[in-house]
Amino acid sequence: MKKEISGHIVDVRNQKIYDGVVTIENHHIVSISLSDKVEEQYLMPGFIDAHVHIESSMLLPENFAILASRHGTVGVVTDPHEIANVLGVKGVEFMIENSKKTPFHFCFCAPSCVPATPFETNGFAISSAEIEPLMKNPDIYGLAEMMNFPGVLSGDAEVLRKIEASLHAGKPVDGHAPGLLGADLEKYVAAGISTDHECTTIEEAQQRVQLGMKVLIREGSAAHDFDALSPLLQDCPDKLMFCSDDKHPDELLDGHINQLVKRALALDYPFWNVLRAATVNPVEHYHIPCGLLQPGDAADFIVVDNLRDLNVLQTYISGEVFEGNVNNVALHEYYEGHIAAKEQESTNSWPNNFQAQPIELKDLRVEPLSRQMRVIVSSDGSLLTDVEVVEPLVKEGNVVSDLEHDVLKMVVYNRYTPAKPQVAFIKGFGLKEGALASTIAHDSHNLIAIGATDEALLAVVNHLISLKGGLAVCEMQDGKPVFKSMSLPVAGLISPCSGEEVAYQFDKIAAVSFRLGCQFIAPFMTLGFMALPVIPKLKLTDKGLFDSEKFAFTELFV
Amino acid sequence: MKKEISGHIVDVRNQKIYDGVVTIENHHIVSISLSDKVEEQYLMPGFIDAHVHIESSMLLPENFAILASRHGTVGVVTDPHEIANVLGVKGVEFMIENSKKTPFHFCFCAPSCVPATPFETNGFAISSAEIEPLMKNPDIYGLAEMMNFPGVLSGDAEVLRKIEASLHAGKPVDGHAPGLLGADLEKYVAAGISTDHECTTIEEAQQRVQLGMKVLIREGSAAHDFDALSPLLQDCPDKLMFCSDDKHPDELLDGHINQLVKRALALDYPFWNVLRAATVNPVEHYHIPCGLLQPGDAADFIVVDNLRDLNVLQTYISGEVFEGNVNNVALHEYYEGHIAAKEQESTNSWPNNFQAQPIELKDLRVEPLSRQMRVIVSSDGSLLTDVEVVEPLVKEGNVVSDLEHDVLKMVVYNRYTPAKPQVAFIKGFGLKEGALASTIAHDSHNLIAIGATDEALLAVVNHLISLKGGLAVCEMQDGKPVFKSMSLPVAGLISPCSGEEVAYQFDKIAAVSFRLGCQFIAPFMTLGFMALPVIPKLKLTDKGLFDSEKFAFTELFV
Repeated sequence: MKKEISGHIVDVRNQKIYDGVVTIENHHIVSISLSDKVEEQYLMPGFIDAHVHIESSMLLPENFAILASRHGTVGVVTDPHEIANVLGVKGVEFMIENSKKTPFHFCFCAPSCVPATPFETNGFAISSAEIEPLMKNPDIYGLAEMMNFPGVLSGDAEVLRKIEASLHAGKPVDGHAPGLLGADLEKYVAAGISTDHECTTIEEAQQRVQLGMKVLIREGSAAHDFDALSPLLQDCPDKLMFCSDDKHPDELLDGHINQLVKRALALDYPFWNVLRAATVNPVEHYHIPCGLLQPGDAADFIVVDNLRDLNVLQTYISGEVFEGNVNNVALHEYYEGHIAAKEQESTNSWPNNFQAQPIELKDLRVEPLSRQMRVIVSSDGSLLTDVEVVEPLVKEGNVVSDLEHDVLKMVVYNRYTPAKPQVAFIKGFGLKEGALASTIAHDSHNLIAIGATDEALLAVVNHLISLKGGLAVCEMQDGKPVFKSMSLPVAGLISPCSGEEVAYQFDKIAAVSFRLGCQFIAPFMTLGFMALPVIPKLKLTDKGLFDSEKFAFTELFV
Repeated sequence: MKKEISGHIVDVRNQKIYDGVVTIENHHIVSISLSDKVEEQYLMPGFIDAHVHIESSMLLPENFAILASRHGTVGVVTDPHEIANVLGVKGVEFMIENSKKTPFHFCFCAPSCVPATPFETNGFAISSAEIEPLMKNPDIYGLAEMMNFPGVLSGDAEVLRKIEASLHAGKPVDGHAPGLLGADLEKYVAAGISTDHECTTIEEAQQRVQLGMKVLIREGSAAHDFDALSPLLQDCPDKLMFCSDDKHPDELLDGHINQLVKRALALDYPFWNVLRAATVNPVEHYHIPCGLLQPGDAADFIVVDNLRDLNVLQTYISGEVFEGNVNNVALHEYYEGHIAAKEQESTNSWPNNFQAQPIELKDLRVEPLSRQMRVIVSSDGSLLTDVEVVEPLVKEGNVVSDLEHDVLKMVVYNRYTPAKPQVAFIKGFGLKEGALASTIAHDSHNLIAIGATDEALLAVVNHLISLKGGLAVCEMQDGKPVFKSMSLPVAGLISPCSGEEVAYQFDKIAAVSFRLGCQFIAPFMTLGFMALPVIPKLKLTDKGLFDSEKFAFTELFV
């Protein structure tokens, strides 16, 4: 069946705007004709997020697509790094399979660094022997962010084999090299790595562009590099893309790449440079089979009200119509019932890797071995921590949370193999009662929890174990734990619920954590980085307290 | 009026081939529709010659367009360097004005180096004060080949002002830097120069591409770099273009950029890389307002029989149809009458700069000042000469041509200001009788002639003076000169005749020169370089014998 849509056509590929009628048939654009009489709306190529971990939205690909397409996103380049740490190649395959339920362009890259480090326990490793067959899969578009840049520079054979497998298949290799400059950067580029999304300064970005790399301007829930890097848009038509890296469900509800395009245009950066970064450049670099509003192309494009407000009226993907954000609906309480039913019915049918057994109160006891204790010092939304030495608060021979000084007990518990929970202490979260916990803890996604009392901590940990993954807060009412939680039955990372439902739950849980005294705007995001050993200074993994400046495990007591 | 053309559409911009119908109205493509039933022919973007001196074809732009479009060329980037040396900015303006008689895309660049050197006399200089207003002219697309690379490297103020004027107007600056490598090349690029068409080795070309320059693969009447540079097509989709630099009328009759595309495809270089070099890349780099077979584009495209033979059936430029080379006609004698009439009627109406007065036999006399004489040694088609010292042949106190040893008398005569003709001797041309002469002599286009006898030389020089420019051969029959000549009344460089007529005359004159004993396949091209002082080793300019190794004038006698 033919369908005609008219409007001002924004032809980014050819950098011109003209009035015309687009005719769609069989998922493709079968004709484009100039016309003097068109609807007062703009048709333009859809936006691409050139690097995002879908798992950060806690959504299945099929649900991510519904939410992202509302903002004019028609495709993403995505690294299933999180689920791969839990489930290995099977996790990658699950994501690909689920993504096929929607025409949205999911371009998966093979995770290059699973596990990321030997300092924590993850579910599976992905070696070069597994990367090689993955690269033959037409659903794999490249090798995802090569974080192991020391391995690249030292010529680590396993690292080079992974890169070679991708290049040999004609697929690009993404970089991840914060701060790398000069001769080392040249060596990294010479290894065949062609992008970086980790630039935080214009100098870093300019060096990369000069060496022929593409730079991804990243603005997501965790990283905010738009202000630093957007000046590149002034002169660089073909080396830039936009990405979010991580986008939490509540923020994905508000907007996506459309926000960056709108900001860049409001700052008067050259129109076509901005539009290319959001559309043509990623399509070309990653060979995304995404239409660009040309005759014969797949019918992938968006309809917006005007080029200033960029309100998305409709998003066409492969000819299928998705509603735009102008029709956005408010979140209502009635989601609650839906959610419970959905979680109930399906918890056991999802792929997961959750072996941890319930713990006991004695597992959380800490013997005071000295009067001086190392404490992790966290700050809102930051991957970095500081370290302080404090005097432990001891009750009945057990070091407990010191609420007066905001020194809270924290636990990280291996969810893959039998082990004792690791216990340490952290400042910054500000809890005055209760506890919070998550099975989203980069990069290995073990169970991480912080509590105002051992009892609340125990309760929240065992609650998440019973759910086999999720986010939870625990309030003690009359000595009994009351939970507010979101179940993440897919690998302990992803909910089967819709984007609105997940965003709603996510907001609710955060609201409870504020009520318990937590000062952070993004408590679960911050919590999720407290077990990430490679980022300074002091972290707690399932294997113990890790000093990333000395790059070695350390003791709780000085 | 609407017009529909169907075929297999080769969409180089989007790198796909599909069957469709193109609808043209008001010089534009108003619709492209997919179709299952199309003519068995291919529609593709037309070819661009990214650097050519139109003057080398000896044709007016309007006539060049007819011949070039026959081979699928729809546009050229052109440097009116030759006519600018004769007429200054007026010459540039004349070419632009004439080019407007055809929809063919003539993208003129402002000549950057007029005069090229102080070692010969030309008609006019073009200073930065004249470049600046030219750059405001929308018919000027950039600054033409910056040959003065020593000036760029030393930071010559006048050179930098010209470059700055072009960059400031948002227009590219073309390079010309044979052999420049390493740090000097980096400095040249840093000055804002973005192309080079003078590479003859793959190493030169690769260094330029790595520094972000575009490399023009040149194959024309004088330079033949295709074999050396075509391997770049293997991996380089966006940094290459094709150009001819110089294309003589007889060779332009046979083919143009279509020949290079065909050769490259026969060598199995990647299809889209080859097509991009011939179409999209120059259009983008020079911002040529040339359609690329996209909806709304100007109707600029070609119709070819298939992608192997590339026989051009039709060339559309701005919706106007030009016949293709499949309808090529043979050259006939009857052109003679046309030509004579056309030359007769219009000789005085063309712009020219020809002040030279007839010379006398005594002006050609050379006193034998020693027994050792420096002689220029030429070889067919080469800009380079060697030098030999020989014993002069003296008759009646005058050094004359020594036919036995192929040492011929040569004269270069300033055509702009009163001066004495300069006389020297040259080996290689092999004339056994008669003389040949030309007013195409790079870069200043003074009158240059070579003769077997002083009488023939005198006759041919004065004949060209009577024509106010052209090419001529002179045969002595019964002691009287008989001429075969082509009048070039436009600046002494260009004929008002059609491409076929000029090619026919050019071939005829060459045929006579062969009969007179000349061994060279391209006698007039070789002759045209014998006054070019900057190319080693020994040359004769209107100011005297020039030793380009010592970079100074020298004496005829040792």
